[in-house]
Amino acid sequence: MIGRSGVAVKHVTRADAAAVAELAEHGVATVHEAMGRVGLMAAYMRPIFPGARVCGTAITIFAHPGDNWMLHVAAEMLKTGDVAVLATSSENSDGMFGDLLATSFRARGAVGLVIDAGCRDTAELRGMGFPVWSKAVHAKGTVKATVGSVNTPILCAGALVHPGDVVLADDDGVVIVPKAHAATVAAAATARETREAGTRRRLAAGELGLDVYGMRETLAKAGLRYYENEAAWQQELGQ
Amino acid sequence: MIGRSGVAVKHVTRADAAAVAELAEHGVATVHEAMGRVGLMAAYMRPIFPGARVCGTAITIFAHPGDNWMLHVAAEMLKTGDVAVLATSSENSDGMFGDLLATSFRARGAVGLVIDAGCRDTAELRGMGFPVWSKAVHAKGTVKATVGSVNTPILCAGALVHPGDVVLADDDGVVIVPKAHAATVAAAATARETREAGTRRRLAAGELGLDVYGMRETLAKAGLRYYENEAAWQQELGQ
Amino acid sequence: MIGRSGVAVKHVTRADAAAVAELAEHGVATVHEAMGRVGLMAAYMRPIFPGARVCGTAITIFAHPGDNWMLHVAAEMLKTGDVAVLATSSENSDGMFGDLLATSFRARGAVGLVIDAGCRDTAELRGMGFPVWSKAVHAKGTVKATVGSVNTPILCAGALVHPGDVVLADDDGVVIVPKAHAATVAAAATARETREAGTRRRLAAGELGLDVYGMRETLAKAGLRYYENEAAWQQELGQ
Amino acid sequence: MIGRSGVAVKHVTRADAAAVAELAEHGVATVHEAMGRVGLMAAYMRPIFPGARVCGTAITIFAHPGDNWMLHVAAEMLKTGDVAVLATSSENSDGMFGDLLATSFRARGAVGLVIDAGCRDTAELRGMGFPVWSKAVHAKGTVKATVGSVNTPILCAGALVHPGDVVLADDDGVVIVPKAHAATVAAAATARETREAGTRRRLAAGELGLDVYGMRETLAKAGLRYYENEAAWQQELGQ
Amino acid sequence: MIGRSGVAVKHVTRADAAAVAELAEHGVATVHEAMGRVGLMAAYMRPIFPGARVCGTAITIFAHPGDNWMLHVAAEMLKTGDVAVLATSSENSDGMFGDLLATSFRARGAVGLVIDAGCRDTAELRGMGFPVWSKAVHAKGTVKATVGSVNTPILCAGALVHPGDVVLADDDGVVIVPKAHAATVAAAATARETREAGTRRRLAAGELGLDVYGMRETLAKAGLRYYENEAAWQQELGQ
Amino acid sequence: MIGRSGVAVKHVTRADAAAVAELAEHGVATVHEAMGRVGLMAAYMRPIFPGARVCGTAITIFAHPGDNWMLHVAAEMLKTGDVAVLATSSENSDGMFGDLLATSFRARGAVGLVIDAGCRDTAELRGMGFPVWSKAVHAKGTVKATVGSVNTPILCAGALVHPGDVVLADDDGVVIVPKAHAATVAAAATARETREAGTRRRLAAGELGLDVYGMRETLAKAGLRYYENEAAWQQELGQ
Repeated sequence: MIGRSGVAVKHVTRADAAAVAELAEHGVATVHEAMGRVGLMAAYMRPIFPGARVCGTAITIFAHPGDNWMLHVAAEMLKTGDVAVLATSSENSDGMFGDLLATSFRARGAVGLVIDAGCRDTAELRGMGFPVWSKAVHAKGTVKATVGSVNTPILCAGALVHPGDVVLADDDGVVIVPKAHAATVAAAATARETREAGTRRRLAAGELGLDVYGMRETLAKAGLRYYENEAAWQQELGQ
Repeated sequence: MIGRSGVAVKHVTRADAAAVAELAEHGVATVHEAMGRVGLMAAYMRPIFPGARVCGTAITIFAHPGDNWMLHVAAEMLKTGDVAVLATSSENSDGMFGDLLATSFRARGAVGLVIDAGCRDTAELRGMGFPVWSKAVHAKGTVKATVGSVNTPILCAGALVHPGDVVLADDDGVVIVPKAHAATVAAAATARETREAGTRRRLAAGELGLDVYGMRETLAKAGLRYYENEAAWQQELGQ
Repeated sequence: MIGRSGVAVKHVTRADAAAVAELAEHGVATVHEAMGRVGLMAAYMRPIFPGARVCGTAITIFAHPGDNWMLHVAAEMLKTGDVAVLATSSENSDGMFGDLLATSFRARGAVGLVIDAGCRDTAELRGMGFPVWSKAVHAKGTVKATVGSVNTPILCAGALVHPGDVVLADDDGVVIVPKAHAATVAAAATARETREAGTRRRLAAGELGLDVYGMRETLAKAGLRYYENEAAWQQELGQ
Repeated sequence: MIGRSGVAVKHVTRADAAAVAELAEHGVATVHEAMGRVGLMAAYMRPIFPGARVCGTAITIFAHPGDNWMLHVAAEMLKTGDVAVLATSSENSDGMFGDLLATSFRARGAVGLVIDAGCRDTAELRGMGFPVWSKAVHAKGTVKATVGSVNTPILCAGALVHPGDVVLADDDGVVIVPKAHAATVAAAATARETREAGTRRRLAAGELGLDVYGMRETLAKAGLRYYENEAAWQQELGQ
Repeated sequence: MIGRSGVAVKHVTRADAAAVAELAEHGVATVHEAMGRVGLMAAYMRPIFPGARVCGTAITIFAHPGDNWMLHVAAEMLKTGDVAVLATSSENSDGMFGDLLATSFRARGAVGLVIDAGCRDTAELRGMGFPVWSKAVHAKGTVKATVGSVNTPILCAGALVHPGDVVLADDDGVVIVPKAHAATVAAAATARETREAGTRRRLAAGELGLDVYGMRETLAKAGLRYYENEAAWQQELGQ
Repeated sequence: MIGRSGVAVKHVTRADAAAVAELAEHGVATVHEAMGRVGLMAAYMRPIFPGARVCGTAITIFAHPGDNWMLHVAAEMLKTGDVAVLATSSENSDGMFGDLLATSFRARGAVGLVIDAGCRDTAELRGMGFPVWSKAVHAKGTVKATVGSVNTPILCAGALVHPGDVVLADDDGVVIVPKAHAATVAAAATARETREAGTRRRLAAGELGLDVYGMRETLAKAGLRYYENEAAWQQELGQ
């Protein structure tokens, strides 16, 4: 069952490094589409500074409201290229993470944090260039009293995350790619980007999506009617 | 009735170009005041990057939740200086608009987008300098399955928008000026700015608004009592 | 009783200037911790531009929804180094404060504003470098019809604020230090920073918080169990 | 422009009484569908007691946050069968309406209230059987200081309401039928109910909507694939 | 400072019993008005069943998110006629209170609970007739790990509450009357009810508030203009 | 991957009937505790009428915003004792379910619905006694245009649900018991109830939880200090 407390798993199978590297070339929106429109976290997960961007492998943390103890436990499991991902057992916006933990996480190799709770010391984190996606920015301090878990599956901001999954985050939010599908999704994302490059050129030249995507007929079948101007529409309505 | 689907009006009467140009010189707050404190969209409509600013004429879009089909239909109606304005038939935060549509819209002459839904590819849009005001930033993809309307009156984020109305947006939000009143409102905004310039000089010199605006007597009549310090107030309360 | 209208107290005892200066050296999170984790405003109070920072003494304002009259009354009470703090009698996001009031406030010596309502003219305020923490950015104009109070105790965004208290605000939010405790809290904050500097060095060198803070034993007592890998955990669950 | 203050229109053309009577026989969902899925207020407008139900003609009120003065002005315009509908110039949840105003409104003939703000004395209103749909229940008192308008068009909770329009409200929310379309919509609603009665009988007998509405082919075309069980699906995925 | 943890005060001075009894005769809205429109909790504090009503003296509880330990400490301080009032150190909706605690509280003499967090076992509480006002209904369980305080001043849902203050709650929400003012406020509430009874009779007879309260002249001065019908208004606008 | 569209699984392995029957005897809070405090849906999932209660096996539905097509597909898979559980691909409050679908679902044997979206015809559903837990009550109609899935794993309101899992819902919300653990959890819930019965008797007799649970020593160790009265505490603070 998801949400069990008291478990710390030391070693994790991570997604294939080449797939992570290829996914890192793409944006969250592209990868989400390439997966078949799945894997996104909720829109309330926002970067603490514009332009933040990360792609790495998940170390998962399950914590309790107002308690950041498990972040210290997770620090020991972090390896180069990891992104810590924290879910809580109930809604909480306390500032569970700040510059001291960021110093520790970076020293262990972590490249970012995704936290369905609050973050603080955001000016310092921006200065360090340590990217965080969080539900809130809040200075509220936390206790270290109740154990949660590290490296068990979690539900974070509407996404299911297993340890070792790929975490990709940018200005648009956060997407999780299951490690088993990392290579396939990376290839699909690259293919999509290539395809879109051609479309972009045509649109930039002034062609319409209606023609590029061939939508005119389906729109008509779906019931869209064109009118020269508002008067023409009103006239029909009035009859 | 507002909210009818299936209608695409091709040609729109736009607000007077000179009035649009004059309104473009002012901020949203000034124009809202000059209109008699009306026309604002809700506070949740935020620019996707700081310093975003636009003034243009509205091409209106009515779409369904999770469906961005009508944005493609609207592209064909866009002319130089237009701002697309999208309302949905029910609350939705999906990422209906991204860099491909922005490329298309810009190629057609559009200068911005106001969307009561989500926006994605925000890093790319910031790079392009294409300003968007939205309810959310979210990578969530959308379908093209159900027709809405283009260039019919819409209710967008608490404002009534007719095709061709002036759309002015900046860091403070979005205001709509009905096309019939564009010139009058522009003149009132300019007059207000002139008047405020004098007030600003007096306030900058240390004069009080109480004196500049002559408020002391009305405050007293409305019941405001002055006390030298907290002790004086407490003494009176205690009696 | 908190929330009485009709009172304007002219002179206020402010927190000790040396304590204010010392507190200004610290961040909101540090000071909140140094006070024993109290005094924070709610997480929804956000700066209108990144990097905003202020430390000063409170001039308190109690206003009614949609009515910014008391800001003008407060202007007269402002002295160099003051921060205006506004609470409302009920939830409101109207743009009660803009560049004209900022011009006046600055001319009177104020160094910032904390407002549990809306703010407007934010581009101009950013240009002036006048920092504001608010609940919302909204251009909505307000009336001047109903008196509130100035320099009475207020409840602002979940914090109790007395006139003269220290207001410290940065990217993480807003904390209030009661004037009677300003020196003690400042000293505690400085001590905490010194202590944290040593911890930061150890963490930066790769030591774990588990060891720096000596958490391993208490975690075990609290029930945390370590597993080599997921298989080991699953094996135990299955037995 | 919508949202002008200072206007009180005494006499209003109301929707046809027979159409109002016919609409009163139907639920909000049915009428909303019969209109082509338009005219609903936002989901946050809730009845103050379960089972509340009203159908009448709108007297519109435009008020300012924290100010219920216009409700008294509106009382004079109420006639038998009217429903007062109040919008505010900005978001507000204050308790603008209570048992005294309900006593007055009922004495004037009003049969209910729809208010995009707060309501109080809800136990008394339930006792009186006076139905109210509101954004909030809150005891917060209001002032009488700033004029709004009565019987001008308003935007209330996402719906455009003209004086004299039909207001239908029940446990599901509130729908507005423009007076010009009242008879047409009433007829369409009645027809829909008749049609649904037949469908209901078939569904109650165990027939599936898939067959009653003939959806099987379109579902297949839209890409739905059936699998005997989860294993069959997993097998295909794994290939 | 408000929000200190680790303090349990055993004996509390309670508001005068006769004043509590008199306040119990009135509704929350009336008492809030009689105090000068202060003392209300936020609108999100709702009773767990309709018709809930309580008036008693406050035992205050300060707890941490996800931790209901202090409710057990508070049980010992409860006397006949007390209402427990719980605030948290940060936002939390966990189900801190259920039927076991209600059984204990009732056995100790408590007559209700006001909790700025979640409540559970609501069907059983309704069955017992034990009234609770809460921020949420949620089954989420809590830990007993971190000490808060009992019988220190708290900020609960926007209201300042001291131990022994009067807590009055009904369908409209919760109001706090400081114990020192209980008798005065009770008298003012009774006077207000008497005055309103006369007004109610006049309104029920069809008199208008405009005349009962003599508002016509002030409305005119404030700028309200009457028009016979919409055409008359439009005509003036058009000139 | 969770969230794939286009899949309809016909046959589902359901939780053991005896375990479902045993779980039906308990409340949501009890079962959630018996599982180790996991499995709850978010607090925003509320019953459409008080006293609603259901326990059954899940038929899962994955739908798109504003589109209720999959509810018709699901109807065919429903068996006696099933509870339909619907998740959406993005936030949506449209009224996807009403009395016609309820008629169909009941005819097929379903005993309730849990929907992370809106519900309508709530008066009729209350009349039928068909229990629904939803995110919102809204009359907003939906289309049938885009396929989702039936009987694939879903994330619904923060809970992971597999087809055939036990769904238990009452006034406190919704909890999901994985089918593999149904019997174990049922037994644990029954044991917990038995244990609590004894505790309840002791608490009802006036014993304190402090003594029943033996908390006094741990509270003291955790730092709780007792003071006779407020004066004693203030005296210590002042020294």
